[in-house]
Amino acid sequence: MRNTLQLFVAVATFAVASPVLSAEPLPSWNEGSAKRAILEFVERATKQGGPEFIPPADRIAVFDNDGTLWSEKPVYVQAAFAVDRIKALAANHPEWKETQPFKGILEGDLKAALAGGEKALVDVVNKSHSGLTTEEFQTVVKDWIAAARHPTLGRPYNELTYQPMRELLAYLRANGFKTYIVSGGGVEFMRVWAEEAYGIPPEQVIGSSGKTEFEIRDGKPVLVKLPAIDFVDDGPGKPVNINKIIGRRPVAAFGNSDGDLQMLQWTTAGSGLRFGLIVHHTDADREFAYDRESPIGRLDKALDLAPAAGWVVVDMKADWKVVFPQPK
Amino acid sequence: MRNTLQLFVAVATFAVASPVLSAEPLPSWNEGSAKRAILEFVERATKQGGPEFIPPADRIAVFDNDGTLWSEKPVYVQAAFAVDRIKALAANHPEWKETQPFKGILEGDLKAALAGGEKALVDVVNKSHSGLTTEEFQTVVKDWIAAARHPTLGRPYNELTYQPMRELLAYLRANGFKTYIVSGGGVEFMRVWAEEAYGIPPEQVIGSSGKTEFEIRDGKPVLVKLPAIDFVDDGPGKPVNINKIIGRRPVAAFGNSDGDLQMLQWTTAGSGLRFGLIVHHTDADREFAYDRESPIGRLDKALDLAPAAGWVVVDMKADWKVVFPQPK
Repeated sequence: MRNTLQLFVAVATFAVASPVLSAEPLPSWNEGSAKRAILEFVERATKQGGPEFIPPADRIAVFDNDGTLWSEKPVYVQAAFAVDRIKALAANHPEWKETQPFKGILEGDLKAALAGGEKALVDVVNKSHSGLTTEEFQTVVKDWIAAARHPTLGRPYNELTYQPMRELLAYLRANGFKTYIVSGGGVEFMRVWAEEAYGIPPEQVIGSSGKTEFEIRDGKPVLVKLPAIDFVDDGPGKPVNINKIIGRRPVAAFGNSDGDLQMLQWTTAGSGLRFGLIVHHTDADREFAYDRESPIGRLDKALDLAPAAGWVVVDMKADWKVVFPQPK
Repeated sequence: MRNTLQLFVAVATFAVASPVLSAEPLPSWNEGSAKRAILEFVERATKQGGPEFIPPADRIAVFDNDGTLWSEKPVYVQAAFAVDRIKALAANHPEWKETQPFKGILEGDLKAALAGGEKALVDVVNKSHSGLTTEEFQTVVKDWIAAARHPTLGRPYNELTYQPMRELLAYLRANGFKTYIVSGGGVEFMRVWAEEAYGIPPEQVIGSSGKTEFEIRDGKPVLVKLPAIDFVDDGPGKPVNINKIIGRRPVAAFGNSDGDLQMLQWTTAGSGLRFGLIVHHTDADREFAYDRESPIGRLDKALDLAPAAGWVVVDMKADWKVVFPQPK
């Protein structure tokens, strides 16, 4: 009995895990050096007995979100959420009509709103993301993401994920990689829709966070979101948070901006086989084209360092057959 | 071909996941209400189509470490590590001979060392846990845990884990639960030996943390441990950190002290089937006996709240056939 079962397990495991039996991977990627580099990395990493074999437990792959897995233009999706949230809360805050940055947001004058620099931004984040329990906040985000539409592309934000990157996530997972999001975006904002959009469960979503406080409300324990930033998961904060939360150095990192530079450096400096990839936004027709001069998703230093570091630079226009999934 | 494979997968999955085919679970637990409660919880949680079925993705179980999975007497293991580390570093710090809390540690006068209260403790933690890269620190912990011995029990600390709790971890995992450590101990201290001791990988170890900083040293990116506490994962900090890092409310929580109270409350207040368990140290012969009056692992309020909350209280002396694993 036992031997027969072991055979079943072996056959089934082979059937599930073997890329040979699955459909052609990465169908939305054009043939070219980027696709070839991905396929070669996975082949080398998973080749049993090969010199560069990576044990399954170490197959940690980290993905930036804004600009890497979904669009970040004209503004970060979470900024659009914050603006809508300030508008929704304004009735309870008559003083906002006279105080920046809220006055500017309510009047549609973002320039005036953001004239206060970082302090203004922090004000908006804190006011728009606090006061609720963590579970109430989830409901607010869920309702918002279902209703909101991208200002120029006209589709729900969670449909504006990149089809080729979704295929890449699935391909890596089919080959035993554990896929994580490591984003400057808010962790509690992303977790609400990330599992459906990317197949990434809450415990594999890492991001910026606000402080929360344990409290007994009406006899029930809750976590209340405070108007205070806890950690900014961007730039050098990314490897810091990966170390704190995952506790292993990843073997593959995927980003699109200088905010991902240190994550790419730290990941690819580890020993053994490593992989780094940068999504370069080169497609003004199908999405947006930007790099060195863009205030959002600025890609400058990482682009300079990519060739020497051996990071793959994806030319969105040339490498991707489609950008977004078919509308539902 | 496909249908045959699907059948293989189904059979193999059943064979692997079904508790029916495995050996009798929890062999080191005496028959009694605690063992019965655990078995019943798992049976109800995993019964396909049952009214209390918990989907596998939601089967998150969180375990305190000190006093719940291994001994915490006469002092926390990590405190013993910190003392040894201060002694090892003293040669480079001649000034410590004249300054508390270091003077007391070097002279074996812990009372004098800790007269400075919390500030003294923080000083010791910061000085003993900083200055190294995260990878250097791992090596230091690895070497220490291999060499150190418990002062009264005479065995390596990582052999003084509780055999019944190791069986419980394995039993839960065999039934599709994802097991996490959520400890007041340092996350980078625990990860070094937790996988071998408990079968819990680094990314499922949550604990207190120190700040780290990304740096390029000799052309290589490293994370350097700073002399500053980042987060204390104890008491109300436990649900805060669980929410931040796991992002789901667990369905089962296991602790032994008032430091686990809020984790137990938050876990068991969720909707649907929940489970809370407290290890009560009642066995002075085989381990230690302590509760309400103990400065370490004080169990007072949680013990009072347990009956009304429905938390299982394990009587270590009566419920466990053995405490520690057989010496290797």
